Amino acid sequence: MDTAQNGDLIMLIAPKKKHMLFKLQADAEMQTHQGVLMHNDIIGTPYGSKVFTHMNAELRLLRPTLRDILLHTKRRSQIIFPKDIGYILLRLSIRSGSRVIEAGTGSGALTTALAWAVGESGKVYSYDRRNDLQNVARKNLRKTDLDNQVEFHLRDISEGFEEKAVDALFLDVPDPQNYLKGVRSALKNGGAFGALLPTTTQVSVLLEALENDNFLNPDVCEILLRFYKPVPARLRPADKMVAHTGYLIFARPDFPS
Amino acid sequence: MDTAQNGDLIMLIAPKKKHMLFKLQADAEMQTHQGVLMHNDIIGTPYGSKVFTHMNAELRLLRPTLRDILLHTKRRSQIIFPKDIGYILLRLSIRSGSRVIEAGTGSGALTTALAWAVGESGKVYSYDRRNDLQNVARKNLRKTDLDNQVEFHLRDISEGFEEKAVDALFLDVPDPQNYLKGVRSALKNGGAFGALLPTTTQVSVLLEALENDNFLNPDVCEILLRFYKPVPARLRPADKMVAHTGYLIFARPDFPS
Amino acid sequence: MDTAQNGDLIMLIAPKKKHMLFKLQADAEMQTHQGVLMHNDIIGTPYGSKVFTHMNAELRLLRPTLRDILLHTKRRSQIIFPKDIGYILLRLSIRSGSRVIEAGTGSGALTTALAWAVGESGKVYSYDRRNDLQNVARKNLRKTDLDNQVEFHLRDISEGFEEKAVDALFLDVPDPQNYLKGVRSALKNGGAFGALLPTTTQVSVLLEALENDNFLNPDVCEILLRFYKPVPARLRPADKMVAHTGYLIFARPDFPS
Amino acid sequence: MDTAQNGDLIMLIAPKKKHMLFKLQADAEMQTHQGVLMHNDIIGTPYGSKVFTHMNAELRLLRPTLRDILLHTKRRSQIIFPKDIGYILLRLSIRSGSRVIEAGTGSGALTTALAWAVGESGKVYSYDRRNDLQNVARKNLRKTDLDNQVEFHLRDISEGFEEKAVDALFLDVPDPQNYLKGVRSALKNGGAFGALLPTTTQVSVLLEALENDNFLNPDVCEILLRFYKPVPARLRPADKMVAHTGYLIFARPDFPS
Repeated sequence: MDTAQNGDLIMLIAPKKKHMLFKLQADAEMQTHQGVLMHNDIIGTPYGSKVFTHMNAELRLLRPTLRDILLHTKRRSQIIFPKDIGYILLRLSIRSGSRVIEAGTGSGALTTALAWAVGESGKVYSYDRRNDLQNVARKNLRKTDLDNQVEFHLRDISEGFEEKAVDALFLDVPDPQNYLKGVRSALKNGGAFGALLPTTTQVSVLLEALENDNFLNPDVCEILLRFYKPVPARLRPADKMVAHTGYLIFARPDFPS
Repeated sequence: MDTAQNGDLIMLIAPKKKHMLFKLQADAEMQTHQGVLMHNDIIGTPYGSKVFTHMNAELRLLRPTLRDILLHTKRRSQIIFPKDIGYILLRLSIRSGSRVIEAGTGSGALTTALAWAVGESGKVYSYDRRNDLQNVARKNLRKTDLDNQVEFHLRDISEGFEEKAVDALFLDVPDPQNYLKGVRSALKNGGAFGALLPTTTQVSVLLEALENDNFLNPDVCEILLRFYKPVPARLRPADKMVAHTGYLIFARPDFPS
Repeated sequence: MDTAQNGDLIMLIAPKKKHMLFKLQADAEMQTHQGVLMHNDIIGTPYGSKVFTHMNAELRLLRPTLRDILLHTKRRSQIIFPKDIGYILLRLSIRSGSRVIEAGTGSGALTTALAWAVGESGKVYSYDRRNDLQNVARKNLRKTDLDNQVEFHLRDISEGFEEKAVDALFLDVPDPQNYLKGVRSALKNGGAFGALLPTTTQVSVLLEALENDNFLNPDVCEILLRFYKPVPARLRPADKMVAHTGYLIFARPDFPS
Repeated sequence: MDTAQNGDLIMLIAPKKKHMLFKLQADAEMQTHQGVLMHNDIIGTPYGSKVFTHMNAELRLLRPTLRDILLHTKRRSQIIFPKDIGYILLRLSIRSGSRVIEAGTGSGALTTALAWAVGESGKVYSYDRRNDLQNVARKNLRKTDLDNQVEFHLRDISEGFEEKAVDALFLDVPDPQNYLKGVRSALKNGGAFGALLPTTTQVSVLLEALENDNFLNPDVCEILLRFYKPVPARLRPADKMVAHTGYLIFARPDFPS
């Protein structure tokens, strides 16, 4: 539908580009810095419209994109950024029906994107040792109605993974080199393995372990995203940018012969 | 299945990282620089295994990832790069079931990624004026069995788009500013619009048109992807990199009130 | 001398890397957040030593490098950054004895670097319409004892430049395209011209003017400087970086034949 | 003088931007791909003019900038790039009269820039174990009449440096961590130390050694230089760029107390 419905996850944009993201619930109300909004007044309104608080402050009603959702992830830990997630999905070939493992769950940004991409016919298996983090992730996923696509394991991955023959596996943990046996035994033959690591030292350690464990085609990269000030007559990059989130490493287990 | 099947799109990797990507067909044979391969010898082989030519040259058998497929797009025109495509999918919120328009078709790299992401329940509507390009794209999509997800229109988009209320629309044409009326009438309320443009001059022109046509939240960015030499004890970036593919512009049509 | 002398421009570094830069004056005292320092206690101390405030806070005594001096430029306007200045000096071939024009003076960061490089046998001619800015620049230069190398002109450059046959000329003004006749008549044959411009729109306008005025070899570039956290076991880029200062444009006037 | 003189180092630019750089010598001749040039025909010609070969091919006569000279360094080894050299000079505070040590000499690109900057009142002390490299560097410096500013040492720096109390010291060797005692004893108190290293692994090793040896303010960075196609109506970055030359590390020895 083209109009906001009860239960929709919506985004409101204030003039200075401040964003709010929440779920519409009949009879609920929303406090903003510029007055109160009644959810009932939004329900039925076409997306792209203006809506107004009781103090007559103007906001724009939009459907959040996946990137908006990811950037609004409630977080207790560093999340993986959209610039990296978009590329990870391509490198891991995630699609409708894919079965994929990730560890750790963290606050669930990558979990959200994976759940989004695998759809109802796929499944995300998400491991973390910390219950508090998984609860944050669970809430984030519930907000986007993606929680059914995810099976959480509260468990140390040094004990291995429960699933077999998954299509892809991604590790966002500080010591991925310690779990490569488990990675290999969980992935299907030639499946896609990826990891994110913040420091060059960790990358070297992982690369060495991948070599020793006969992973194929190791590949390391980093992605820089630069925004521009969108002013037609004075186009120029923004003053500051994120200089680093992490290095991405990809490889494929061999099939021993 | 974990072994290569008749009809699978497979990738073979030679020692110097030269890649071949083709579809397995019973009884067919494949010429390589280092001898002949019988498809029948590959069928049934586990992914991740070594396979050998009749001259005993060693190759690795892998399932191509979406990124591998995109990089092997047969091209008659510049393709959109995986680094950009991954981010476009997130910004346009493409998922299973999405209906999305793109123009032009070009060689079909973005078409492939969109078809991949929308799955069987979604649809990609791809416009181009050039039949020869659409035929190249059609072949590329057939190779990946994604052609059923795409409806091609051989048509100038200055006449507008045939579809209504699509979720997202992406323009990879030199003059997107000329089609914003059509964009607005094809997109559902508040739908996601994106474009790729190689020059700053074009970006300025598009930004001005978006302003004049009341598009919301215009956003301009560029993505730099830097690879590293994956040598554990001598980790360092590669010597050269792609310095530019294009600027990405995103915006949302308002709903007039 | 290896010890701090009366009249030296010195730098003190606090533990959290806060820097102070000032000139030593016998009998003066310096207030810091952590107590008072008597200049006399610093005079005679070897560079690289610890010095202490009356509250016993520890500071390191260093000679500022040119880059330190540039970063501590007292500013009323945006300064040109060291990363750009280093490259400008090379592209303009500034050396001991060079005669070079710049406009505008601004707060005098580039002026300082030019004065530094041309030495006692060279000269920098610095133009600005704003007296207040030139006074700031003058103070900055006096602090580094470089003011004798600079001749300030309080003057609009649309009236041209007073000097002839200078080796190089750099414009840090919003509309350099309007002064190319003056540039040509001030530069010696084939001299080096450079400009810094923040927006792509301005770059296009200047490039067109350079073409129309037969400047040779126009060249546009930008410099990105990325710092790393200097932690041996956890080497990684800093979280944020400057994404943009400006585009650098270089060209040479032809000699008409 | 504004016209090319016997003995000048000149640059000729062919239409496709091919550059030649050589010294004018009365009565000499120069072979180009498009015919012969008599040096005598160039002597006396204003810089910025066209000159013609005997086959009437048109070339432009320019004075090379320091950057042109550096890029034309005859090389037997990887040279340090102008983008890095400009910044190194600022960080090391090189100026007229400076005394500076570098090792290794390599092909002499940094040597050239240092000699250029220290002028006749300064001195560059350049160490290398390889005579063949130093001979290449010597020739490069002679071409630019900078050889008098340089004193070459054919010597392994593990034996230390001969000079004392130099203003700055730069190491372009694979294992700078092994020479820090020598660095400290050659530099004046609080002098400026710099190094260039291609791999992250080497950077970590050096940082650890700097920490152990009480060097102050270690700083690591890298510089990316991106060129644009200088076409006014189609401004955009070049397609490819250098992704990496090396990491720059700077620090200052403390004065022990």
